[in-house]
Amino acid sequence: MEYVMTRTTAEWQAADAAHFLHPFTDFQALAKKGSRIITSAENIYLRDSEGHRILDAMSGLWCVNVGYGRQELIDAATRQLRELPFYNSFFQTTTPPAVELAELLAEVMPPGFQHVFYAGSGSEGNDTVVRMVRRYWDLQGQPERQVIISRWNGYHGSTMAGASLGGMKYMHAQGGLPIPGITHIEQPYWWLHGRPAGLCRAEFGKVAAGWLEQKILEVGPEKVAAFIAEPIQGAGGVIVPPETYWPEIQRICDQYGVLLVSDEVICGFGRTGHWFGCQTVGSRPDLITFAKGVTSGYIPLGGVMVGERVAKVLIEQGGEFEHGYTYSGHPVACAVALANIRLIRELKLVEHVHDELGPYLAEQFAQLGEHPLVGEAQTCGAMGALLLVKDRASGEAFPGELEIGMLCRGHCFGNGLIMRAVGDRMIIAPPLVMTLAQVDEMVALIRRCLDLTLADVRARGWMP
Amino acid sequence: MEYVMTRTTAEWQAADAAHFLHPFTDFQALAKKGSRIITSAENIYLRDSEGHRILDAMSGLWCVNVGYGRQELIDAATRQLRELPFYNSFFQTTTPPAVELAELLAEVMPPGFQHVFYAGSGSEGNDTVVRMVRRYWDLQGQPERQVIISRWNGYHGSTMAGASLGGMKYMHAQGGLPIPGITHIEQPYWWLHGRPAGLCRAEFGKVAAGWLEQKILEVGPEKVAAFIAEPIQGAGGVIVPPETYWPEIQRICDQYGVLLVSDEVICGFGRTGHWFGCQTVGSRPDLITFAKGVTSGYIPLGGVMVGERVAKVLIEQGGEFEHGYTYSGHPVACAVALANIRLIRELKLVEHVHDELGPYLAEQFAQLGEHPLVGEAQTCGAMGALLLVKDRASGEAFPGELEIGMLCRGHCFGNGLIMRAVGDRMIIAPPLVMTLAQVDEMVALIRRCLDLTLADVRARGWMP
Repeated sequence: MEYVMTRTTAEWQAADAAHFLHPFTDFQALAKKGSRIITSAENIYLRDSEGHRILDAMSGLWCVNVGYGRQELIDAATRQLRELPFYNSFFQTTTPPAVELAELLAEVMPPGFQHVFYAGSGSEGNDTVVRMVRRYWDLQGQPERQVIISRWNGYHGSTMAGASLGGMKYMHAQGGLPIPGITHIEQPYWWLHGRPAGLCRAEFGKVAAGWLEQKILEVGPEKVAAFIAEPIQGAGGVIVPPETYWPEIQRICDQYGVLLVSDEVICGFGRTGHWFGCQTVGSRPDLITFAKGVTSGYIPLGGVMVGERVAKVLIEQGGEFEHGYTYSGHPVACAVALANIRLIRELKLVEHVHDELGPYLAEQFAQLGEHPLVGEAQTCGAMGALLLVKDRASGEAFPGELEIGMLCRGHCFGNGLIMRAVGDRMIIAPPLVMTLAQVDEMVALIRRCLDLTLADVRARGWMP
Repeated sequence: MEYVMTRTTAEWQAADAAHFLHPFTDFQALAKKGSRIITSAENIYLRDSEGHRILDAMSGLWCVNVGYGRQELIDAATRQLRELPFYNSFFQTTTPPAVELAELLAEVMPPGFQHVFYAGSGSEGNDTVVRMVRRYWDLQGQPERQVIISRWNGYHGSTMAGASLGGMKYMHAQGGLPIPGITHIEQPYWWLHGRPAGLCRAEFGKVAAGWLEQKILEVGPEKVAAFIAEPIQGAGGVIVPPETYWPEIQRICDQYGVLLVSDEVICGFGRTGHWFGCQTVGSRPDLITFAKGVTSGYIPLGGVMVGERVAKVLIEQGGEFEHGYTYSGHPVACAVALANIRLIRELKLVEHVHDELGPYLAEQFAQLGEHPLVGEAQTCGAMGALLLVKDRASGEAFPGELEIGMLCRGHCFGNGLIMRAVGDRMIIAPPLVMTLAQVDEMVALIRRCLDLTLADVRARGWMP
C-alpha cells in the first residue's frame, strides 16, 4: 500500500499523462479522462488508488494464472536475483534455471516437444516462428516455402512480424504492415460467418477449415511454410470454434505438409482445461508459442517450443541459427517460471479448470446467455465470452456508434469488475485459482453490469 | 551456490544439450562441446559449476551496469512482486512504478525527452521505432516518408524488424530478411574503410557521414523517414567513429528533416561517460531506444523515449497508436529500473566512468595497443576494443580461417576472463562499478591472453 499514500490519484494521473505513452491508447483522450491507478493485488482482487477492490476477471492480461501475491513465485525471484540476476546464453554458456525450465517445459508440453527457444514475450516468440519455419524449409531444400497463413482477427503480438501474422486490420493500418509473405484467411466465427449463411456449427467448422485448404491451393502448396493459429482466439474475442474445425485443419496441414504452429500465449498453462490448448482442441502442432501464463506474468518471459520434426532438422543440419535475444533464457524469468509451473502442478490447477472451474463456468455462462442482451455465450475452460446483441431472435447487432461493449465495460469498471470488451463481445479469462464461490461472485457482478447496460440501452431507446 | 551442488557439470551439460536451443548457436556443435554453466555472480565476478571465478568484462551482455548482487535492486523486485507483480496499462489503467519510472527517465534523459513508450527489450523497442516514425510521417501528411536508413554492421536487435534495421548480413541470410523499406549505408569504421583509402580519421568521419547524404539523395529526401544508429557500434565490435562523424550526421538529418534515432540499448545509462551516448557524441536525436542498462539486466525491460517533435504529433493528432506489448510498463521491471537508476545516481557511476574509469581504461588500452598482435585499440567510456592484426605496420589481417578472435577468446575463457570476439576485434564493456584496481586485474588478464594467443600464432607459423 506504500504507493497509495505517497500521492493522490490526481497526482498520479497528472504524472501518468505527462510521461507515459500507454499501449493501444489515444494518448490525448486518456490524458483528459485520467488513468485508473492499480496499486496492489492479492489472489484475484486488485486494489486501486481510491481504495476500490476490483475482481480481476482478465488475469491482468490473460496471464496471472496462479493469481496475485503467490509467495512461491516471489521467493523464487528473490533467490535467483541474489544468486545470479542475469547471464546470457549466447557464447557457449548457460544457467541452471534456463536448463531446468527447458527440462520442465519438455515434461508438461504435449509429447514430441523436447526443445525450447527462449524469447522475452509472446511477440518475440511469434517473431521467432516466422524465421524458424522459413529456415526449416530452407534446410529441407524447399526455400520457396516462405508463405505463412494466419487468420483475420487472430492475435499474435505486436512486433512487426507478430502484428503481420495477426489479423487485426486496425494494426495493419499503421506503420507499413503487414510484412510480405504472410496471408490471412477468415476466422471460424460461427455467429458472424456461419449463422447468417444458415449453417449449423458443425457444418460451419468444416467450411471454415476449408478456407485454409483453398488458400493453400491458391498460394500453391509448394510455397506454404506454415499455418499459425490460436486454438481458441483470445484477443479476437474468446471465439471458440466448432468442434469440427481443428480436426479438419489438422488433416489439411498433414495433407499438404504444412507446418502447424499453435499460438498458446493465451491458451497455454491450463487456461483451457488441459496444459495446452492444442490438447483441448485435439491438434498436433509442430511449434508452440508461449508466454504470459508461463510465469503468470510475474516476470516477462516467452518462447517457442520446437517439436521433433523441426528440431531435428535445425539441430542436425542447421549450423548456426542466427537469432536470439539478450533476455533469452533470463535466469530470473526462468526461475519464476519453474516455481509457477510447479505450483500449477501442486495446486492441480489444470485439473481444477478441467473438472470444476470450467464446467461450472460453462453452466453459469449458459444462464447468462438467457439475458435479453446476450446473443451467444461461449466458454472453454477458464475463458468465456458474451456477445451483446440488439435482438436475440434475429441476431441483429447494435449500431456500432453505440459502442455497446464500451458501455458495458464502463459499468464493469464502476462496479468493481475487470471484464474486457472486444467489439460487442464481453470477455473473461480469470485466474485459474478462482473458486466456485468466486465464480458466483463474478457472475453476479456480470449480471448486474448487463442489467445496467440494458437499462442504458432502453433509456436511449435502442431496445424496447 | 545451491545449483552447484544439485548436479554435476556433465549432468547440467547433458540436460542443456537435450532441451535448450541457445541463441546465435550451432546447436549440434554446442552439444558436442558442452556448455559452461554459470551458477552465481557478485560485483564483477562470475562463478561457474566447476568453481572457477571469472572476471566478467562484458557485463553479462552489455547490461549489468551496477554489477551483480546489488541488494537495492533485489529488494525493489521483491517489494513490487509482493505489492503487484503484474498489471497491464492497455485499458485506461496504470501502475505506480510505470509512472514513476516514466518521470525519472524524463529527468535523466537529454532535454526534450518527456515521454516513454515501454517495450520488453531493445528488439521490441527498435521494432516500435519503425512503426512510430512511419506513423509520425503519416500524421504529418507525408505518408511517402517510409524508408529508414541504417548501417551495415549496426545491431538493432533480433525481431524481424530489428534484424532488418541491423546490418548483420549473416542474420539477413535466414528467414526472409530484411523487410521492405529499410536500406543500409556503410559503417564509419576507419580501419576498414578509411585507412586503406589513405584518409586520416577526421577526413574519413566526414566521408562516412556523407554516405548518409548520398543515400538520402538516392532514395529521395521526400521518402526518407529516419536514420537509426548506435552512437558507438556495440555488437559490431565497439567501433568508435571519428569525432567528425556525428556532427556531420546531425547536419544532414537536420538539412533533410530526417528523424534521427539513437539506439542507446548499449550506450545508455552511463556506458560512454554520459547518461546517454548521444551526449558523448554530441547528437540531438528525436527518438532514443533503450534496454539492458535500464535495469542492469536484472529484469527484462526496454522501450523508446519519444522526443518533443514526435511526441507532440502522436499525442495531439495521433488518435489511437495501435501498438503495445503485454509487458509494456511491467511493474516489477519498472520498479527495478527505478532502483537501478537511483543507484547509478547515488554511486555517481556516470561521473565515475567520465572522470576515472573511462580515462584510466583509455590509458591502459593505449598500452595494450603496443602489443605485437594489436593493430588498433579504442575505448569510449567503459567500452573498448582491440583489433588483432598479423602485421601492425601494414595493417594486414590474419587469414579468416585462423579465427584469431575465437582463438584469443578461448584463452580468455581458460584464464578466468569473459571478453568477446567480434571477428578480429576483442571487446569489453565491464560493469560501471569496476574500480581502477579491477581495471589493472582485467588488463593483466587481457595481456596474458594476448601473449598466449601470440604464442599460438607463432607456433602455427602465422607470424615470425
